[in-house]
Amino acid sequence: MAKDLVIGIDIGGQTTKCGIVDARGTILSQTVIRSDNHTEVEPYVAELAAALNHIIAEAGAEDRIRGIGVGAPNGNYYTGTIEFAPNLTWGGQQKIEFAKMLSEAVGGIPVSLTNDANAAAMGEMTYGAARGMKNFIMITLGTGVGSGIVINGEVVYGHDGFAGELGHTCAVRHNGRSCNCGKNGCLEAYASAIGVARTAREWLEMSDEPSVLRSLDRISSKDVYEAARDGDALAKRVFDFTGRILGEKFADFIEFSAPEAIVLFGGLARAKEFLTEPILKAMNENVLPLWRGKVQLVYSQLKESDAAILGASALAWEL
Amino acid sequence: MAKDLVIGIDIGGQTTKCGIVDARGTILSQTVIRSDNHTEVEPYVAELAAALNHIIAEAGAEDRIRGIGVGAPNGNYYTGTIEFAPNLTWGGQQKIEFAKMLSEAVGGIPVSLTNDANAAAMGEMTYGAARGMKNFIMITLGTGVGSGIVINGEVVYGHDGFAGELGHTCAVRHNGRSCNCGKNGCLEAYASAIGVARTAREWLEMSDEPSVLRSLDRISSKDVYEAARDGDALAKRVFDFTGRILGEKFADFIEFSAPEAIVLFGGLARAKEFLTEPILKAMNENVLPLWRGKVQLVYSQLKESDAAILGASALAWEL
Repeated sequence: MAKDLVIGIDIGGQTTKCGIVDARGTILSQTVIRSDNHTEVEPYVAELAAALNHIIAEAGAEDRIRGIGVGAPNGNYYTGTIEFAPNLTWGGQQKIEFAKMLSEAVGGIPVSLTNDANAAAMGEMTYGAARGMKNFIMITLGTGVGSGIVINGEVVYGHDGFAGELGHTCAVRHNGRSCNCGKNGCLEAYASAIGVARTAREWLEMSDEPSVLRSLDRISSKDVYEAARDGDALAKRVFDFTGRILGEKFADFIEFSAPEAIVLFGGLARAKEFLTEPILKAMNENVLPLWRGKVQLVYSQLKESDAAILGASALAWEL
Repeated sequence: MAKDLVIGIDIGGQTTKCGIVDARGTILSQTVIRSDNHTEVEPYVAELAAALNHIIAEAGAEDRIRGIGVGAPNGNYYTGTIEFAPNLTWGGQQKIEFAKMLSEAVGGIPVSLTNDANAAAMGEMTYGAARGMKNFIMITLGTGVGSGIVINGEVVYGHDGFAGELGHTCAVRHNGRSCNCGKNGCLEAYASAIGVARTAREWLEMSDEPSVLRSLDRISSKDVYEAARDGDALAKRVFDFTGRILGEKFADFIEFSAPEAIVLFGGLARAKEFLTEPILKAMNENVLPLWRGKVQLVYSQLKESDAAILGASALAWEL
C-alpha cells in the first residue's frame, strides 16, 4: 500500500500531542500523553511508541506511514538530537539521540526533528496563514517567545541547526529583566505570557492606580487579557507596552531578512485586538523607510491544538 | 571561443571600479572612472560602457565575457534596479533599470546586480576568508555599515531583494544618534568610520582628558586609529566602545541565523588590533550560552581594492 500518511508529534514541557495526518492536512487520529511522567528518556520513548502504535492501529494505517516529524524544545534538525532542554523532565542534562531512538522504537519508520517554533513555521507555510509565502518570520508568543524563520521557502537552521532564537535577542539593553536563559533584557522576558504577567505585577507595585488586577492573588497573562477586555486601563497599557517592545524588535528582524510578513502564533497572540496597533506603530516607526507600511502582520489561522501536530507533520513529508 | 571570463563592477559614491576576472579570481585588466561626474544616469552608463570596452579590448576578451556583475548601493538583485540611492549623484530620486541599461550599452552582455555588501559577501565566499562556509554574515565597516548575509550557501535577498540592512538595526534605543537613514540609534551611526570619528569628537567635548586628537582641526576615523596606535588612551577607548556596540549587535545576529562566522571587511576593519577583543567580549557576553565562544570573528583576506571587483564578478558566474 502507498505510504500516503505522516505522523506529527509536538513535545511540550507538560504534554506530548501526536496525530496521523494526510496530504491535505486532515488529522485522522490523535492522542496526547504526559511529557513529564519520567526523568529518563527511555521509558518516555517507550510510552510514546505505544501511543503511536495505538493511533496507527486505530486508523488502520499500519503500512501507510511515510515518516514521523517531531517538534521539540532544543530539537536539532541536522542531528535529530534534543540537546540540554531544561523544560523537559528527562532532557535537561544531556544530548539525546531522540530521532534515532524513536525510529527504532516504532519499527524503523524514519523520524525528522526540529524545534517547536520551526515546526510551527512549517505548519503555517504548509497549511496556514503563510501558504504561498517564501519569506516570513513566525513568532510564537507562549510561555516563552520562539521563532521560526523562513527564507526563500526554507526554514533557516544555520550552521549548527539552532538558528532562530529571536526570543533571546536583546529588547532592553540596560537594566533589563533577567531571562530564563541566564541573560538579561531578552525579548522573551517581556513579550511572553510570563513577561506580560510580570509587567502587570511590576506596574501594580509601582503605583496606586486602580485596576481589577489588584484583587487577584496571582496574575496570569490571561487575567491581564480579560481585564483589558473589561476596559481596565492599566491592563490595556500592559499590552501597549508589550506591543511596542515586539514592534521595535520586529523592525530589526525585517532589516535582517526582509520578510513579506511576520506571523504571530500562540496563546498571547489571542490578545490581537490589543497588540496589533502598538506592534505596527513601533515596527513602522523603527524600520527603514523602504519597508514602512509594507510588511504584513498576520495571525496564525490554525487551531492551536492542531497547529502543533500539523507543523511537526509537515517535516515528515520531506523524509 | 568559450565565454570563460566575467566582469565585476563596484559602484561607490565617488568612484566606479571595473575589472575582467577569470575563473581563478585573477583580475586580468581593470580601470576606474568617477561615479559623480553626472547628475543623469544615461551619460554615466555611456562612460562606463566605454571604459568596459576599453578593458575588454586591452585583454583581447571581445568574445569571452560571460556576464557582468555589479555591486551598487541600493541595488536590487531581483529587478536589476538601483532604487533611490542617496549617495549616487545620478541615483537619488528614482528607480533606475540599471542592469538593463548597461546590458544594452555593451551589446547585450547579461548583467546581474546586487548591493555592495552582498557583492562583498559573494567575493569573500568565492575567493576569500569565507571559502567553504555556508553560513556567515559579512559586515562592511566603511563610511557606513553594510551587511551581506549568507545562509546555506546563498546570499539572503528576502521578499523584495533588499534584505541585510544590519547597519540600520537599533544599537541604542533611547537618545540614540541620528543616522543618515532618518532613524535614530542605528548601528551605522556608531560603528562606521563616521561614527567612530563622531564618538571621538563627542568625548573630547565632554571632558578635558588629554589626547593627541585635540590638536586636530577635523578628526577622521583614521586619525583615531593612528592615535590609538600611538597609545592615546581616549582613542583606544573609542575603539573599545565601538567594539562593544558591534559585539552586542552581533549577538542578536547570531541568534537570528546561527552563522559559523562573522566576517569583517572595510576601512575600519583595519583597526582589528583594537576591535577584536571588545567585539568578542560583548558578543560572547550577550549571546545565548549555546553559541558562547563558538562563532568565529574573521577579517577579510582580500585586498580592499580587489575585493569590490571580485565580489561583483562572483555574481556574474551565476548568469
